[in-house]
Amino acid sequence: MPEPFRTTRLVEFHDTDMAGIMHFASFFVYMESAEHELLRSMGFSVHSIVGDEHISFPRVSATCDYTAPAHCEETLDIAILVTRIGEKSVTYEFRFTHEGRPIALGRMTSVCCRIVPGERPVSRPIPAEMAERLRTYAN
Amino acid sequence: MPEPFRTTRLVEFHDTDMAGIMHFASFFVYMESAEHELLRSMGFSVHSIVGDEHISFPRVSATCDYTAPAHCEETLDIAILVTRIGEKSVTYEFRFTHEGRPIALGRMTSVCCRIVPGERPVSRPIPAEMAERLRTYAN
Amino acid sequence: MPEPFRTTRLVEFHDTDMAGIMHFASFFVYMESAEHELLRSMGFSVHSIVGDEHISFPRVSATCDYTAPAHCEETLDIAILVTRIGEKSVTYEFRFTHEGRPIALGRMTSVCCRIVPGERPVSRPIPAEMAERLRTYAN
Amino acid sequence: MPEPFRTTRLVEFHDTDMAGIMHFASFFVYMESAEHELLRSMGFSVHSIVGDEHISFPRVSATCDYTAPAHCEETLDIAILVTRIGEKSVTYEFRFTHEGRPIALGRMTSVCCRIVPGERPVSRPIPAEMAERLRTYAN
Repeated sequence: MPEPFRTTRLVEFHDTDMAGIMHFASFFVYMESAEHELLRSMGFSVHSIVGDEHISFPRVSATCDYTAPAHCEETLDIAILVTRIGEKSVTYEFRFTHEGRPIALGRMTSVCCRIVPGERPVSRPIPAEMAERLRTYAN
Repeated sequence: MPEPFRTTRLVEFHDTDMAGIMHFASFFVYMESAEHELLRSMGFSVHSIVGDEHISFPRVSATCDYTAPAHCEETLDIAILVTRIGEKSVTYEFRFTHEGRPIALGRMTSVCCRIVPGERPVSRPIPAEMAERLRTYAN
Repeated sequence: MPEPFRTTRLVEFHDTDMAGIMHFASFFVYMESAEHELLRSMGFSVHSIVGDEHISFPRVSATCDYTAPAHCEETLDIAILVTRIGEKSVTYEFRFTHEGRPIALGRMTSVCCRIVPGERPVSRPIPAEMAERLRTYAN
Repeated sequence: MPEPFRTTRLVEFHDTDMAGIMHFASFFVYMESAEHELLRSMGFSVHSIVGDEHISFPRVSATCDYTAPAHCEETLDIAILVTRIGEKSVTYEFRFTHEGRPIALGRMTSVCCRIVPGERPVSRPIPAEMAERLRTYAN
Protein backbone atom coordinates (compact mmCIF):
# COMPACT_ATOMS: atom_id res chain seq x y z
CA MET A 1 0.00 0.00 0.00
CA PRO A 2 1.75 3.19 -1.14
CA GLU A 3 1.84 6.36 0.90
CA PRO A 4 -0.23 9.15 -0.63
CA PHE A 5 1.20 12.54 -1.57
CA ARG A 6 0.07 14.93 1.14
CA THR A 7 -0.50 18.65 1.09
CA THR A 8 -2.68 21.16 2.92
CA ARG A 9 -4.80 24.12 1.98
CA LEU A 10 -6.37 26.87 4.01
CA VAL A 11 -9.99 27.56 3.05
CA GLU A 12 -10.06 31.16 1.88
CA PHE A 13 -12.86 33.67 2.35
CA HIS A 14 -13.58 34.08 -1.38
CA ASP A 15 -14.17 30.31 -1.63
CA THR A 16 -17.07 30.50 0.81
CA ASP A 17 -20.66 31.21 -0.21
CA MET A 18 -23.72 32.69 1.47
CA ALA A 19 -24.46 29.31 3.09
CA GLY A 20 -21.37 30.06 5.19
CA ILE A 21 -19.32 27.14 3.86
CA MET A 22 -16.76 26.45 1.15
CA HIS A 23 -18.48 26.42 -2.26
CA PHE A 24 -18.71 22.93 -3.79
CA ALA A 25 -17.02 23.98 -7.06
CA SER A 26 -13.93 25.24 -5.22
CA PHE A 27 -13.06 21.67 -4.28
CA PHE A 28 -12.22 21.09 -7.94
CA VAL A 29 -9.89 24.06 -7.93
CA TYR A 30 -8.20 22.75 -4.79
CA MET A 31 -7.84 19.31 -6.45
CA GLU A 32 -6.17 20.85 -9.47
CA SER A 33 -3.76 22.89 -7.40
CA ALA A 34 -2.87 19.81 -5.32
CA GLU A 35 -2.31 17.83 -8.55
CA HIS A 36 0.03 20.55 -9.82
CA GLU A 37 1.90 20.55 -6.51
CA LEU A 38 2.35 16.78 -6.89
CA LEU A 39 3.68 17.29 -10.42
CA ARG A 40 6.09 19.99 -9.26
CA SER A 41 7.33 17.73 -6.44
CA MET A 42 8.37 15.30 -9.21
CA GLY A 43 10.15 18.01 -11.17
CA PHE A 44 7.34 18.50 -13.70
CA SER A 45 5.02 21.40 -14.36
CA VAL A 46 1.43 22.01 -15.40
CA HIS A 47 2.71 22.53 -18.91
CA SER A 48 5.87 20.55 -19.55
CA ILE A 49 8.19 20.59 -22.47
CA VAL A 50 9.28 17.05 -23.28
CA GLY A 51 11.74 16.90 -26.11
CA ASP A 52 10.34 19.53 -28.45
CA GLU A 53 6.74 18.83 -27.53
CA HIS A 54 4.57 20.97 -25.31
CA ILE A 55 2.46 18.59 -23.24
CA SER A 56 -0.39 19.17 -20.83
CA PHE A 57 -3.13 17.17 -19.11
CA PRO A 58 -6.70 18.21 -19.97
CA ARG A 59 -9.33 16.54 -17.79
CA VAL A 60 -11.83 14.06 -19.19
CA SER A 61 -13.63 13.49 -15.93
CA ALA A 62 -13.92 15.06 -12.48
CA THR A 63 -16.11 14.06 -9.58
CA CYS A 64 -16.53 14.92 -5.92
CA ASP A 65 -18.56 13.44 -3.07
CA TYR A 66 -19.16 15.74 -0.15
CA THR A 67 -19.30 14.36 3.39
CA ALA A 68 -19.12 17.42 5.62
CA PRO A 69 -18.86 21.16 4.99
CA ALA A 70 -15.54 23.01 5.14
CA HIS A 71 -15.35 26.47 6.67
CA CYS A 72 -13.29 29.61 6.19
CA GLU A 73 -9.76 29.47 7.64
CA GLU A 74 -9.93 25.73 8.28
CA THR A 75 -6.82 23.91 7.08
CA LEU A 76 -7.78 21.00 4.87
CA ASP A 77 -5.46 18.01 4.60
CA ILE A 78 -5.39 16.60 1.08
CA ALA A 79 -4.05 13.11 0.40
CA ILE A 80 -3.58 12.15 -3.27
CA LEU A 81 -3.32 8.62 -4.63
CA VAL A 82 -3.01 7.49 -8.22
CA THR A 83 -5.86 5.01 -8.60
CA ARG A 84 -5.20 4.16 -12.23
CA ILE A 85 -2.43 4.90 -14.68
CA GLY A 86 -2.82 3.95 -18.30
CA GLU A 87 -0.62 4.56 -21.32
CA LYS A 88 -2.10 8.02 -21.93
CA SER A 89 -4.22 8.84 -18.87
CA VAL A 90 -3.98 9.03 -15.12
CA THR A 91 -6.70 8.97 -12.47
CA TYR A 92 -6.15 10.62 -9.11
CA GLU A 93 -8.11 10.31 -5.90
CA PHE A 94 -8.16 13.22 -3.47
CA ARG A 95 -9.16 12.70 0.18
CA PHE A 96 -10.00 15.95 1.95
CA THR A 97 -10.03 15.80 5.74
CA HIS A 98 -10.07 18.38 8.51
CA GLU A 99 -8.55 17.37 11.84
CA GLY A 100 -8.98 13.75 10.81
CA ARG A 101 -12.66 14.12 9.94
CA PRO A 102 -13.62 13.31 6.31
CA ILE A 103 -14.77 16.32 4.29
CA ALA A 104 -14.83 15.20 0.65
CA LEU A 105 -13.55 12.57 -1.76
CA GLY A 106 -12.65 13.66 -5.28
CA ARG A 107 -11.47 11.94 -8.42
CA MET A 108 -10.02 13.36 -11.59
CA THR A 109 -8.89 11.71 -14.82
CA SER A 110 -6.45 13.61 -17.00
CA VAL A 111 -5.18 12.67 -20.45
CA CYS A 112 -1.66 13.40 -21.59
CA CYS A 113 -1.88 15.60 -24.68
CA ARG A 114 0.38 17.36 -27.09
CA ILE A 115 -0.61 21.02 -27.16
CA VAL A 116 -0.29 23.17 -30.28
CA PRO A 117 -1.76 26.69 -29.89
CA GLY A 118 -5.01 27.06 -31.84
CA GLU A 119 -5.31 23.33 -32.46
CA ARG A 120 -7.23 20.69 -30.57
CA PRO A 121 -5.17 18.72 -28.01
CA VAL A 122 -3.99 15.33 -29.31
CA SER A 123 -3.48 12.50 -26.80
CA ARG A 124 -0.05 10.91 -26.53
CA PRO A 125 1.67 8.48 -24.12
CA ILE A 126 2.62 9.84 -20.70
CA PRO A 127 6.40 10.43 -20.74
CA ALA A 128 8.12 7.33 -19.28
CA GLU A 129 9.85 9.17 -16.47
CA MET A 130 6.64 10.86 -15.35
CA ALA A 131 4.66 7.61 -15.52
CA GLU A 132 7.28 5.90 -13.40
CA ARG A 133 7.13 8.62 -10.77
CA LEU A 134 3.33 8.64 -10.73
CA ARG A 135 3.32 4.87 -10.13
CA THR A 136 4.97 5.39 -6.76
CA TYR A 137 1.63 6.87 -5.64
CA ALA A 138 -0.44 4.14 -7.30
CA ASN A 139 -2.39 1.70 -5.17
CA MET B 1 -39.84 10.83 -22.34
CA PRO B 2 -40.04 14.31 -20.76
CA GLU B 3 -38.69 17.46 -22.31
CA PRO B 4 -35.63 18.80 -20.50
CA PHE B 5 -35.45 22.31 -19.08
CA ARG B 6 -33.31 24.30 -21.46
CA THR B 7 -31.14 27.34 -20.96
CA THR B 8 -28.01 28.84 -22.50
CA ARG B 9 -24.83 30.41 -21.23
CA LEU B 10 -22.15 32.42 -22.95
CA VAL B 11 -18.63 31.31 -22.04
CA GLU B 12 -17.02 34.33 -20.40
CA PHE B 13 -13.38 35.39 -20.62
CA HIS B 14 -12.68 34.95 -16.90
CA ASP B 15 -13.82 31.31 -17.16
CA THR B 16 -11.05 30.51 -19.64
CA ASP B 17 -7.56 29.43 -18.65
CA MET B 18 -4.10 29.60 -20.22
CA ALA B 19 -4.88 26.48 -22.28
CA GLY B 20 -7.26 28.77 -24.19
CA ILE B 21 -10.43 26.94 -23.17
CA MET B 22 -13.11 27.09 -20.50
CA HIS B 23 -11.70 25.86 -17.19
CA PHE B 24 -13.06 22.48 -16.13
CA ALA B 25 -14.22 23.71 -12.69
CA SER B 26 -16.37 26.43 -14.26
CA PHE B 27 -18.71 23.77 -15.64
CA PHE B 28 -19.82 23.14 -12.05
CA VAL B 29 -20.60 26.82 -11.60
CA TYR B 30 -22.60 26.81 -14.83
CA MET B 31 -24.50 23.70 -13.63
CA GLU B 32 -25.39 25.40 -10.38
CA SER B 33 -26.59 28.56 -12.10
CA ALA B 34 -28.69 26.48 -14.52
CA GLU B 35 -30.17 24.55 -11.57
CA HIS B 36 -31.11 27.83 -9.89
CA GLU B 37 -32.68 29.08 -13.10
CA LEU B 38 -34.76 25.89 -13.20
CA LEU B 39 -35.84 26.45 -9.59
CA ARG B 40 -36.76 30.07 -10.33
CA SER B 41 -38.78 28.96 -13.37
CA MET B 42 -40.88 26.91 -10.91
CA GLY B 43 -41.34 29.85 -8.56
CA PHE B 44 -38.69 28.71 -6.10
CA SER B 45 -35.35 30.19 -5.12
CA VAL B 46 -31.89 29.02 -4.09
CA HIS B 47 -32.93 29.60 -0.53
CA SER B 48 -36.65 29.14 -0.04
CA ILE B 49 -38.81 29.82 2.95
CA VAL B 50 -41.38 27.03 3.32
CA GLY B 51 -43.74 27.62 6.21
CA ASP B 52 -41.38 29.03 8.82
CA GLU B 53 -38.43 26.94 7.68
CA HIS B 54 -35.47 28.15 5.68
CA ILE B 55 -34.57 25.39 3.26
CA SER B 56 -31.67 24.97 0.84
CA PHE B 57 -30.03 22.20 -1.21
CA PRO B 58 -26.40 21.44 -0.33
CA ARG B 59 -24.71 19.09 -2.79
CA VAL B 60 -23.63 15.61 -1.80
CA SER B 61 -22.15 14.74 -5.18
CA ALA B 62 -21.09 16.46 -8.39
CA THR B 63 -19.48 14.98 -11.47
CA CYS B 64 -18.63 16.04 -15.00
CA ASP B 65 -17.36 14.20 -18.08
CA TYR B 66 -15.71 16.38 -20.70
CA THR B 67 -16.09 15.55 -24.38
CA ALA B 68 -14.83 18.64 -26.19
CA PRO B 69 -13.44 21.98 -25.06
CA ALA B 70 -15.60 25.11 -24.86
CA HIS B 71 -14.21 28.47 -25.94
CA CYS B 72 -14.68 32.09 -24.98
CA GLU B 73 -17.87 33.71 -26.32
CA GLU B 74 -19.36 30.41 -27.47
CA THR B 75 -22.97 30.01 -26.41
CA LEU B 76 -23.46 26.71 -24.62
CA ASP B 77 -26.86 25.04 -24.67
CA ILE B 78 -27.65 23.37 -21.37
CA ALA B 79 -30.42 20.77 -21.11
CA ILE B 80 -31.38 19.64 -17.60
CA LEU B 81 -33.21 16.44 -16.72
CA VAL B 82 -34.11 15.09 -13.29
CA THR B 83 -32.66 11.57 -13.31
CA ARG B 84 -33.75 10.66 -9.81
CA ILE B 85 -35.97 12.21 -7.22
CA GLY B 86 -36.14 10.72 -3.75
CA GLU B 87 -37.95 11.83 -0.62
CA LYS B 88 -35.11 14.16 0.38
CA SER B 89 -32.75 14.35 -2.58
CA VAL B 90 -32.77 15.15 -6.28
CA THR B 91 -30.25 14.24 -8.99
CA TYR B 92 -29.91 16.39 -12.08
CA GLU B 93 -28.21 15.67 -15.37
CA PHE B 94 -26.80 18.55 -17.41
CA ARG B 95 -26.05 18.13 -21.10
CA PHE B 96 -23.79 20.86 -22.46
CA THR B 97 -23.71 21.22 -26.24
CA HIS B 98 -22.43 23.83 -28.65
CA GLU B 99 -24.15 24.06 -32.03
CA GLY B 100 -25.40 20.51 -31.51
CA ARG B 101 -21.97 19.10 -30.69
CA PRO B 102 -21.55 17.48 -27.23
CA ILE B 103 -19.27 19.39 -24.86
CA ALA B 104 -19.83 17.90 -21.42
CA LEU B 105 -22.20 15.83 -19.34
CA GLY B 106 -22.62 16.72 -15.68
CA ARG B 107 -24.55 15.30 -12.75
CA MET B 108 -25.32 16.78 -9.39
CA THR B 109 -27.16 15.39 -6.37
CA SER B 110 -28.57 17.85 -3.88
CA VAL B 111 -30.23 17.13 -0.56
CA CYS B 112 -33.10 19.19 0.77
CA CYS B 113 -32.02 20.63 4.12
CA ARG B 114 -33.37 22.87 6.82
CA ILE B 115 -30.87 25.68 7.37
CA VAL B 116 -30.31 27.32 10.75
CA PRO B 117 -27.43 29.85 10.79
CA GLY B 118 -24.43 28.51 12.67
CA GLU B 119 -25.80 24.95 12.76
CA ARG B 120 -25.18 22.02 10.46
CA PRO B 121 -27.81 21.52 7.75
CA VAL B 122 -30.42 18.85 8.62
CA SER B 123 -32.04 16.91 5.77
CA ARG B 124 -35.79 17.04 5.39
CA PRO B 125 -38.33 15.96 2.75
CA ILE B 126 -38.48 18.03 -0.43
CA PRO B 127 -41.60 20.22 -0.18
CA ALA B 128 -44.46 18.43 -1.97
CA GLU B 129 -45.13 21.20 -4.46
CA MET B 130 -41.47 21.43 -5.46
CA ALA B 131 -41.13 17.62 -5.79
CA GLU B 132 -44.18 17.56 -8.04
CA ARG B 133 -42.76 20.26 -10.30
CA LEU B 134 -39.34 18.60 -10.45
CA ARG B 135 -41.01 15.32 -11.53
CA THR B 136 -42.14 16.97 -14.76
CA TYR B 137 -38.44 16.93 -15.77
CA ALA B 138 -37.86 13.36 -14.53
CA ASN B 139 -37.08 10.63 -17.01
CA MET C 1 -24.53 64.01 -22.74
CA PRO C 2 -24.39 60.57 -24.36
CA GLU C 3 -26.58 57.66 -23.36
CA PRO C 4 -24.64 54.89 -21.62
CA PHE C 5 -24.56 51.32 -22.85
CA ARG C 6 -26.87 49.37 -20.57
CA THR C 7 -26.92 45.73 -19.58
CA THR C 8 -28.04 43.68 -16.60
CA ARG C 9 -26.63 40.80 -14.59
CA LEU C 10 -28.21 38.47 -12.08
CA VAL C 11 -26.07 37.99 -8.97
CA GLU C 12 -25.26 34.28 -8.86
CA PHE C 13 -24.90 32.09 -5.79
CA HIS C 14 -21.22 31.31 -6.39
CA ASP C 15 -20.45 35.05 -6.40
CA THR C 16 -21.68 35.40 -2.81
CA ASP C 17 -19.50 34.87 0.25
CA MET C 18 -20.10 33.90 3.86
CA ALA C 19 -21.00 37.49 4.70
CA GLY C 20 -24.16 36.77 2.68
CA ILE C 21 -23.41 39.28 -0.06
CA MET C 22 -21.77 39.43 -3.48
CA HIS C 23 -17.98 39.18 -3.09
CA PHE C 24 -16.17 42.44 -3.84
CA ALA C 25 -13.84 40.87 -6.43
CA SER C 26 -16.78 39.59 -8.49
CA PHE C 27 -17.66 43.18 -9.42
CA PHE C 28 -14.50 43.23 -11.54
CA VAL C 29 -15.62 40.08 -13.34
CA TYR C 30 -19.04 41.63 -13.98
CA MET C 31 -17.33 44.78 -15.32
CA GLU C 32 -15.26 42.75 -17.74
CA SER C 33 -18.23 40.78 -18.99
CA ALA C 34 -20.20 43.99 -19.48
CA GLU C 35 -17.25 45.52 -21.37
CA HIS C 36 -17.16 42.47 -23.65
CA GLU C 37 -20.89 42.72 -24.23
CA LEU C 38 -20.39 46.35 -25.25
CA LEU C 39 -17.62 45.31 -27.66
CA ARG C 40 -19.82 42.58 -29.16
CA SER C 41 -22.67 45.06 -29.58
CA MET C 42 -20.29 47.02 -31.84
CA GLY C 43 -19.34 43.95 -33.83
CA PHE C 44 -16.03 43.40 -32.05
CA SER C 45 -14.82 40.66 -29.78
CA VAL C 46 -12.59 40.21 -26.73
CA HIS C 47 -9.86 39.16 -29.09
CA SER C 48 -10.24 40.76 -32.48
CA ILE C 49 -8.38 40.17 -35.67
CA VAL C 50 -7.71 43.47 -37.40
CA GLY C 51 -5.95 43.04 -40.71
CA ASP C 52 -3.50 40.26 -39.88
CA GLU C 53 -3.00 41.39 -36.30
CA HIS C 54 -4.45 39.75 -33.24
CA ILE C 55 -5.42 42.53 -30.86
CA SER C 56 -6.68 42.51 -27.30
CA PHE C 57 -7.11 44.93 -24.39
CA PRO C 58 -5.09 44.11 -21.24
CA ARG C 59 -6.04 46.25 -18.25
CA VAL C 60 -3.63 48.74 -16.73
CA SER C 61 -5.94 49.85 -13.99
CA ALA C 62 -9.16 48.75 -12.31
CA THR C 63 -11.00 50.28 -9.39
CA CYS C 64 -14.32 49.93 -7.62
CA ASP C 65 -16.09 51.91 -4.90
CA TYR C 66 -18.79 50.05 -3.03
CA THR C 67 -21.89 51.86 -1.83
CA ALA C 68 -24.29 49.10 -0.85
CA PRO C 69 -24.12 45.30 -0.85
CA ALA C 70 -25.62 43.21 -3.65
CA HIS C 71 -27.42 39.96 -2.86
CA CYS C 72 -27.97 36.63 -4.56
CA GLU C 73 -30.57 36.65 -7.36
CA GLU C 74 -30.81 40.44 -7.43
CA THR C 75 -30.66 41.82 -10.96
CA LEU C 76 -28.01 44.52 -11.20
CA ASP C 77 -28.33 47.23 -13.82
CA ILE C 78 -24.98 48.17 -15.30
CA ALA C 79 -24.52 51.43 -17.21
CA ILE C 80 -21.23 51.91 -19.05
CA LEU C 81 -19.76 55.19 -20.20
CA VAL C 82 -16.45 55.86 -21.90
CA THR C 83 -14.84 58.50 -19.69
CA ARG C 84 -11.64 58.83 -21.69
CA ILE C 85 -10.45 57.56 -25.02
CA GLY C 86 -6.85 58.06 -26.04
CA GLU C 87 -4.91 56.90 -29.06
CA LYS C 88 -4.11 53.54 -27.47
CA SER C 89 -6.23 53.30 -24.33
CA VAL C 90 -9.82 53.54 -23.22
CA THR C 91 -11.28 54.16 -19.77
CA TYR C 92 -14.73 52.90 -18.90
CA GLU C 93 -16.99 53.77 -16.00
CA PHE C 94 -19.48 51.21 -14.74
CA ARG C 95 -22.44 52.25 -12.60
CA PHE C 96 -24.06 49.34 -10.80
CA THR C 97 -27.55 49.95 -9.46
CA HIS C 98 -30.32 47.75 -8.11
CA GLU C 99 -33.88 49.03 -8.50
CA GLY C 100 -32.47 52.51 -8.92
CA ARG C 101 -30.36 52.36 -5.76
CA PRO C 102 -26.56 52.79 -6.23
CA ILE C 103 -24.54 49.66 -5.49
CA ALA C 104 -21.05 50.30 -6.85
CA LEU C 105 -19.04 52.50 -9.20
CA GLY C 106 -16.21 50.93 -11.14
CA ARG C 107 -13.56 52.14 -13.55
CA MET C 108 -11.27 50.22 -15.83
CA THR C 109 -8.55 51.36 -18.22
CA SER C 110 -7.57 49.00 -21.02
CA VAL C 111 -4.76 49.39 -23.51
CA CYS C 112 -5.05 48.21 -27.09
CA CYS C 113 -2.29 45.68 -27.69
CA ARG C 114 -1.02 43.45 -30.43
CA ILE C 115 -0.89 39.90 -29.07
CA VAL C 116 1.71 37.37 -30.19
CA PRO C 117 1.58 34.07 -28.24
CA GLY C 118 4.54 33.72 -25.87
CA GLU C 119 5.54 37.36 -26.27
CA ARG C 120 4.70 40.37 -24.16
CA PRO C 121 1.76 42.46 -25.42
CA VAL C 122 2.82 45.56 -27.40
CA SER C 123 0.55 48.60 -27.33
CA ARG C 124 -0.83 49.94 -30.62
CA PRO C 125 -3.47 52.48 -31.67
CA ILE C 126 -7.10 51.49 -31.18
CA PRO C 127 -8.47 50.57 -34.63
CA ALA C 128 -10.17 53.65 -36.12
CA GLU C 129 -13.58 52.04 -36.52
CA MET C 130 -13.60 50.78 -32.92
CA ALA C 131 -12.45 54.16 -31.55
CA GLU C 132 -15.21 55.88 -33.46
CA ARG C 133 -17.85 53.52 -32.06
CA LEU C 134 -16.50 53.85 -28.51
CA ARG C 135 -16.72 57.64 -28.78
CA THR C 136 -20.51 57.40 -29.05
CA TYR C 137 -20.46 56.39 -25.38
CA ALA C 138 -17.93 59.05 -24.38
CA ASN C 139 -18.99 61.87 -22.11
CA MET D 1 9.67 53.89 7.81
CA PRO D 2 7.99 50.67 8.98
CA GLU D 3 8.71 47.27 7.54
CA PRO D 4 5.80 45.90 5.51
CA PHE D 5 4.12 42.60 6.27
CA ARG D 6 5.39 40.16 3.68
CA THR D 7 3.88 37.03 2.23
CA THR D 8 4.06 35.09 -1.02
CA ARG D 9 1.60 33.43 -3.36
CA LEU D 10 2.07 30.99 -6.19
CA VAL D 11 0.02 31.91 -9.27
CA GLU D 12 -2.35 29.00 -9.82
CA PHE D 13 -3.53 27.61 -13.13
CA HIS D 14 -7.20 28.45 -12.55
CA ASP D 15 -6.24 32.11 -12.02
CA THR D 16 -4.87 32.35 -15.56
CA ASP D 17 -6.96 33.25 -18.60
CA MET D 18 -6.76 32.60 -22.32
CA ALA D 19 -4.30 35.48 -22.71
CA GLY D 20 -1.87 33.18 -20.88
CA ILE D 21 -1.51 35.40 -17.83
CA MET D 22 -3.04 35.80 -14.39
CA HIS D 23 -6.51 37.31 -14.69
CA PHE D 24 -6.71 40.91 -13.46
CA ALA D 25 -9.59 40.20 -11.04
CA SER D 26 -7.59 37.50 -9.24
CA PHE D 27 -5.24 40.16 -7.89
CA PHE D 28 -8.11 41.32 -5.69
CA VAL D 29 -8.57 37.81 -4.34
CA TYR D 30 -4.83 37.58 -3.61
CA MET D 31 -5.01 40.97 -1.82
CA GLU D 32 -7.83 39.77 0.36
CA SER D 33 -6.08 36.54 1.28
CA ALA D 34 -2.90 38.47 2.12
CA GLU D 35 -4.95 40.88 4.27
CA HIS D 36 -6.44 37.91 6.14
CA GLU D 37 -3.00 36.41 6.64
CA LEU D 38 -1.89 39.72 8.12
CA LEU D 39 -4.89 39.71 10.48
CA ARG D 40 -4.19 36.11 11.53
CA SER D 41 -0.53 37.00 12.20
CA MET D 42 -1.88 39.51 14.76
CA GLY D 43 -4.15 36.95 16.37
CA PHE D 44 -7.30 38.14 14.63
CA SER D 45 -9.55 36.51 12.06
CA VAL D 46 -11.64 37.50 9.05
CA HIS D 47 -14.62 37.48 11.33
CA SER D 48 -13.68 38.30 14.89
CA ILE D 49 -15.73 38.17 18.04
CA VAL D 50 -14.90 41.17 20.20
CA GLY D 51 -16.77 41.13 23.48
CA ASP D 52 -20.17 39.85 22.38
CA GLU D 53 -20.02 41.53 18.98
CA HIS D 54 -19.33 39.84 15.67
CA ILE D 55 -17.16 42.21 13.64
CA SER D 56 -15.95 42.11 10.07
CA PHE D 57 -14.40 44.45 7.49
CA PRO D 58 -16.47 45.00 4.33
CA ARG D 59 -14.59 46.87 1.61
CA VAL D 60 -15.61 50.35 0.53
CA SER D 61 -12.95 50.68 -2.14
CA ALA D 62 -10.50 48.48 -4.04
CA THR D 63 -8.09 49.42 -6.81
CA CYS D 64 -5.22 47.87 -8.70
CA ASP D 65 -2.66 49.21 -11.18
CA TYR D 66 -1.00 46.60 -13.37
CA THR D 67 2.63 47.00 -14.40
CA ALA D 68 3.59 43.62 -15.81
CA PRO D 69 1.76 40.32 -16.30
CA ALA D 70 2.09 37.44 -13.82
CA HIS D 71 2.29 33.86 -15.09
CA CYS D 72 1.27 30.43 -13.87
CA GLU D 73 3.53 28.94 -11.17
CA GLU D 74 5.39 32.19 -10.61
CA THR D 75 5.76 33.02 -6.93
CA LEU D 76 4.56 36.55 -6.25
CA ASP D 77 5.97 38.48 -3.32
CA ILE D 78 3.33 40.61 -1.63
CA ALA D 79 4.30 43.44 0.70
CA ILE D 80 1.50 45.08 2.69
CA LEU D 81 1.60 48.49 4.31
CA VAL D 82 -1.13 50.34 6.16
CA THR D 83 -1.33 53.67 4.39
CA ARG D 84 -4.12 55.11 6.51
CA ILE D 85 -5.85 54.08 9.67
CA GLY D 86 -8.89 56.00 10.87
CA GLU D 87 -11.24 55.44 13.77
CA LYS D 88 -13.39 53.02 11.78
CA SER D 89 -11.50 52.25 8.56
CA VAL D 90 -8.14 51.02 7.39
CA THR D 91 -6.44 51.39 3.99
CA TYR D 92 -3.87 48.85 2.86
CA GLU D 93 -1.38 49.01 0.03
CA PHE D 94 -0.24 45.80 -1.64
CA ARG D 95 2.96 45.71 -3.70
CA PHE D 96 3.17 42.64 -5.92
CA THR D 97 6.61 41.80 -7.26
CA HIS D 98 8.18 38.81 -8.96
CA GLU D 99 11.90 38.32 -8.52
CA GLY D 100 12.18 41.99 -7.62
CA ARG D 101 10.30 43.19 -10.70
CA PRO D 102 7.07 45.20 -10.05
CA ILE D 103 3.90 43.40 -11.14
CA ALA D 104 1.01 45.34 -9.59
CA LEU D 105 0.11 47.86 -6.93
CA GLY D 106 -3.20 47.47 -5.13
CA ARG D 107 -5.09 49.39 -2.49
CA MET D 108 -8.07 48.42 -0.41
CA THR D 109 -10.08 50.30 2.17
CA SER D 110 -12.09 48.30 4.66
CA VAL D 111 -14.51 49.56 7.28
CA CYS D 112 -14.89 47.92 10.66
CA CYS D 113 -18.51 46.82 11.02
CA ARG D 114 -20.71 45.04 13.47
CA ILE D 115 -22.36 42.14 11.68
CA VAL D 116 -25.84 40.88 12.54
CA PRO D 117 -27.11 38.15 10.18
CA GLY D 118 -29.85 39.44 7.89
CA GLU D 119 -29.14 43.08 8.78
CA ARG D 120 -27.00 45.65 7.05
CA PRO D 121 -23.47 46.04 8.48
CA VAL D 122 -23.12 49.01 10.87
CA SER D 123 -19.73 50.71 11.14
CA ARG D 124 -18.02 50.84 14.52
CA PRO D 125 -14.56 51.80 15.82
CA ILE D 126 -11.74 49.39 15.10
CA PRO D 127 -11.00 47.52 18.37
CA ALA D 128 -8.16 49.31 20.18
CA GLU D 129 -5.84 46.32 20.26
CA MET D 130 -6.26 45.67 16.54
CA ALA D 131 -5.75 49.33 15.64
CA GLU D 132 -2.57 49.40 17.67
CA ARG D 133 -1.21 46.33 15.90
CA LEU D 134 -2.17 47.67 12.47
CA ARG D 135 -0.31 50.92 13.24
CA THR D 136 2.97 48.99 13.36
CA TYR D 137 2.57 48.58 9.57
CA ALA D 138 1.52 52.19 9.02
CA ASN D 139 3.80 54.50 7.09
